[in-house]
Amino acid sequence: MSPYSTDPVVQTAQSAHARLKPVGVREVNLTGGLLAERYRNNIEAGIPAGWTQLWESHTIPNFYVVSGRRAGNVEGPRYIDSDGYKWLEGACWAYARSRDSALKAWIDEFVDVIAAAQEEDGYVNTHFMGERKSLRFTDLNHAHEIYCFGHLTQAAIAHHRVTGEDKLLNVARRFADLLYRLFGPEGKWGACGHPEAEMALVELSRETREPRYLQLASRMIDARGRKPPVLDGSIYLLDHAPFREQKEAVGHAVRALYLYAGAADLYAESGEQALIDTLHTLWQDVFHRKVYVTGGLGARYEGEAFGLPYELPNLRAYAETCAAIAGFMWNWRMLQIEPNAHYADWMEIALYNGILSGVSLDGTRYFYMNPLESRGGYERSAWFGCACCPPNVHRTLAALPGYLYSLSDETVYVHFYASSELRTRLPDGQPVQLQVQTDYPWSGEVLLRPSAGRYRLALRVPGWALGAELRINGKSAEALPGSYAVVQREWQDGDTVELSLPMPIELIRANPRVEDDRSGGAIRRGPVVFCVEQVDAPGVNLLDLYLPQHIGALRAAYEPSLLGGVVTITGSALVDTVAREQQPLYVPASQYTPPRWREVDIRWIPYYAWANRGAGAMKVWLPLP
Amino acid sequence: MSPYSTDPVVQTAQSAHARLKPVGVREVNLTGGLLAERYRNNIEAGIPAGWTQLWESHTIPNFYVVSGRRAGNVEGPRYIDSDGYKWLEGACWAYARSRDSALKAWIDEFVDVIAAAQEEDGYVNTHFMGERKSLRFTDLNHAHEIYCFGHLTQAAIAHHRVTGEDKLLNVARRFADLLYRLFGPEGKWGACGHPEAEMALVELSRETREPRYLQLASRMIDARGRKPPVLDGSIYLLDHAPFREQKEAVGHAVRALYLYAGAADLYAESGEQALIDTLHTLWQDVFHRKVYVTGGLGARYEGEAFGLPYELPNLRAYAETCAAIAGFMWNWRMLQIEPNAHYADWMEIALYNGILSGVSLDGTRYFYMNPLESRGGYERSAWFGCACCPPNVHRTLAALPGYLYSLSDETVYVHFYASSELRTRLPDGQPVQLQVQTDYPWSGEVLLRPSAGRYRLALRVPGWALGAELRINGKSAEALPGSYAVVQREWQDGDTVELSLPMPIELIRANPRVEDDRSGGAIRRGPVVFCVEQVDAPGVNLLDLYLPQHIGALRAAYEPSLLGGVVTITGSALVDTVAREQQPLYVPASQYTPPRWREVDIRWIPYYAWANRGAGAMKVWLPLP
Repeated sequence: MSPYSTDPVVQTAQSAHARLKPVGVREVNLTGGLLAERYRNNIEAGIPAGWTQLWESHTIPNFYVVSGRRAGNVEGPRYIDSDGYKWLEGACWAYARSRDSALKAWIDEFVDVIAAAQEEDGYVNTHFMGERKSLRFTDLNHAHEIYCFGHLTQAAIAHHRVTGEDKLLNVARRFADLLYRLFGPEGKWGACGHPEAEMALVELSRETREPRYLQLASRMIDARGRKPPVLDGSIYLLDHAPFREQKEAVGHAVRALYLYAGAADLYAESGEQALIDTLHTLWQDVFHRKVYVTGGLGARYEGEAFGLPYELPNLRAYAETCAAIAGFMWNWRMLQIEPNAHYADWMEIALYNGILSGVSLDGTRYFYMNPLESRGGYERSAWFGCACCPPNVHRTLAALPGYLYSLSDETVYVHFYASSELRTRLPDGQPVQLQVQTDYPWSGEVLLRPSAGRYRLALRVPGWALGAELRINGKSAEALPGSYAVVQREWQDGDTVELSLPMPIELIRANPRVEDDRSGGAIRRGPVVFCVEQVDAPGVNLLDLYLPQHIGALRAAYEPSLLGGVVTITGSALVDTVAREQQPLYVPASQYTPPRWREVDIRWIPYYAWANRGAGAMKVWLPLP
Repeated sequence: MSPYSTDPVVQTAQSAHARLKPVGVREVNLTGGLLAERYRNNIEAGIPAGWTQLWESHTIPNFYVVSGRRAGNVEGPRYIDSDGYKWLEGACWAYARSRDSALKAWIDEFVDVIAAAQEEDGYVNTHFMGERKSLRFTDLNHAHEIYCFGHLTQAAIAHHRVTGEDKLLNVARRFADLLYRLFGPEGKWGACGHPEAEMALVELSRETREPRYLQLASRMIDARGRKPPVLDGSIYLLDHAPFREQKEAVGHAVRALYLYAGAADLYAESGEQALIDTLHTLWQDVFHRKVYVTGGLGARYEGEAFGLPYELPNLRAYAETCAAIAGFMWNWRMLQIEPNAHYADWMEIALYNGILSGVSLDGTRYFYMNPLESRGGYERSAWFGCACCPPNVHRTLAALPGYLYSLSDETVYVHFYASSELRTRLPDGQPVQLQVQTDYPWSGEVLLRPSAGRYRLALRVPGWALGAELRINGKSAEALPGSYAVVQREWQDGDTVELSLPMPIELIRANPRVEDDRSGGAIRRGPVVFCVEQVDAPGVNLLDLYLPQHIGALRAAYEPSLLGGVVTITGSALVDTVAREQQPLYVPASQYTPPRWREVDIRWIPYYAWANRGAGAMKVWLPLP
């Protein structure tokens, strides 16, 4: 049996050193609930609006210009092609299930003009063709040429898997062959200032069974941190040290996380101990010291960078949508390598909070930064001059069905709970179906109906799910939070698996080394982090709003007509009624006026749904009274 | 009697709508104590090292190049000339008292080459001469040409006042005349993206009694916020609204504060109510909502900008040295307009904390940013690619004697206490001498000996000085904190005035709307803000360090051999001994481990003196236990 699925899959296929194998996007049908709704909305609204934006931003016209099919100039930033490629990857994953002919026409048109734009030697990048041709590969630090190649290649793989056509895959291969000649073992050292191609090359090697692409990915990872530097030696570009000597997550967050994801892909094929040791060290640094409670990553505006350990400002959180997605991608690869539930826990936190917050409920407007506090006036935009985030949302949501499950030997892993149907084959060829019914993430009750056969089910029990209960045909089984509960049996038709994940309203405290959260708490229920928006605390300056004395008195309820249907949390909070604006900024403690409390009724909504009712103030963390 | 002093004075001279008139730099002799030491160090170490840096950075060579006296290219950023002019202003103020011939030779050489560089039409800016001549005044937003003119003019005024020579003043006048032709009432609208020239033009008008320069300053202030915009309409350049409609301090902090200072200068001459109303509104916004406890201004790295109200991060405080100085300059002008002690209070806080922190104790290394927390590794530099801060320190410290006193009618105002001798004449011509003896800011005991004569003494009682006592020849008089205590009498030789300002160790609390300081406190004694450096808390992660339960148990003592002689504060603080690095970043409150306390003996040092014993971690604000 081939380890390579012929169904559309999301990124990592079964690899020698990965314990899990993804299932295909087409093998999973999201039948209802929040994820299904966000998935559908992305296909029906987000991706079509993206197509329009790609024309208006000149992303697609650039290809027409360089292929000589249209007069005009190439416009936009050097990395603009990648916006189109990411959208195209998303469009292909979407087409895998929608089979929508209008979408296919867009895909065909775009693929056609990309192929037409490619030069004889395999090069394609609209910014460095025509009069800028002489500048090719003269600025690996900032030109993003290899980065754009990476996104082209990921789109090409999706296109190949979904349509069976090899037109775009051949474009990617020819470009990859050019890069191999330039930067492969016989060429000079080279890598892109913005990592991304490493992931793409490993996957291209999986897709084509061509080991040279894996070699090239490996060499690009080895190119970083050399002396003298291949790039600029900077922390920003992750060129400050050889990858295997990088012990702390620093530099540009998206660049760093893409590099880590690429290194994880490489490890999945090579099994090199030094790679996985480095990845574990970096993972600990990121997910124990540098991640927001929303799964947001990259604290600093300056350099879109990781902050120092525990440096997690709320108002000025950068937390780029792309960084949350990059963390999701990295954790996904780690999870396939070793099915440790903590990778899935952080994927889920990111998905339901820091990623979904990146797109409006109508699916057509995007955040670049995802702060955990706003004083008002911050809104999503339809597109950006640097438009990396919108199509990253498109491709991530379009591939969502592929992230719910994995396979291993005789085991079906269930990572994320959503009403869905899985129809797949285990690696040994045995067909398996699994029906899942749940209102997750609004409810923690999950009913699973496996098809008959002898195989294992591995059900993720989230780390937060204290008191989780598992029942097989009504009989209790072990369900340890923060692990996969594995059930092996000869399944019979009609068998039921019931997972019950308690979802109390929880007050989350941060490690007190996080100075920005030290005096406060955040509300979380299940995997969903909540926030207060100005509209739900009328007349209150959110800077004067404090948590209630008793979290236990708060109530959760599903509100079907609010924000597309969300659980909200309502109850009393405290307002400091001292007229703080009249007071000096600094006073001796002896003259300090302590708060005078008034109770107010307020409502918390899921963080991901904020800024869909105007651009009012918002806070995730509120101070303890 | 002329309102214009013939002695070297600091900026604002007596103006129609200013109640106070500065005294000359040469009229004040700093005889001992911290300010005298910093003043001397600046002249003996800072200014000479600056001269070397001006050569190495190509600042002065650029003038040789454009004047044809030297081969080579003009190098450095577009605003590089201003670094030289600021140094030159400082050198002139220094020469006013030092009368050092080596310093005079540097001044002469620099003035000579500036004059040689000036073109026929009055233009001088090394960046826009020669091959870039055609770019003159084509980018008012970012070219800094008028900004550089402003610093040239301030240097020229200092040079004229100190040396009596008119060579550089004539250079400035010719350039000003060119600007008047271009941007005066008969010309088109124009102003510099970086305000500064407004102050310089008002002062040039005072120095030369030429009203056209005042007109031009007025027109440059009026040029902002027009529709269509004269500049780029941005907040960053303070071009988002007409100045008189600007109600909040926003945009680039140094640009904003220089604009406010220029507007204050203009008000001092015009008395226009709308100007002073706007200045009062902006002052309230800045000093009630946007200033650090150190007097630092401009919270954000991005755009070197003011943050939102109460947005005052400590670790990522930008707090540029130039911004603290700009705030000092603005408050000085406000204080001359109306002797309200709160202006002087903030000048003093800035001087002893956020300004002095900008330069090393050896006088030759500088901070650009002045954070209130460091995790280590942050050090001062000898110079910068953008070297605005070092020569701003030079000129401010060199002019220090001129900031201690002002005159008004029959009154001598004493703003800041330092051992010194004032020899001046009141506006009516009456000679006055005042001898001051004090160990301020280490002690609040001040002894003043006025010379015989009938005049008033107005002694500033700082806002923090609760319990202040004033004794005239041993007899008590009123001394209300936050005001000037005015004593009118016929002074006799031998009279003594004793001011006693209690300096307990105080725990300072921030307005709780400052989220970054909400859970903590800072230590202040008199005007000096303290911090803890890693070297004084060995083995303790400063993130785990908390304030003691009882501030009252801390002890202050003068340590003559430490950091050039400082008062330090010693005592017990609390350390959280829970191994926080082992703990998750976020936990439900029910699983939260509260701190386990251990007492440690630590030492606080004055904030200004930090980072003189290596680049260790530092904190001003510590959490309350």
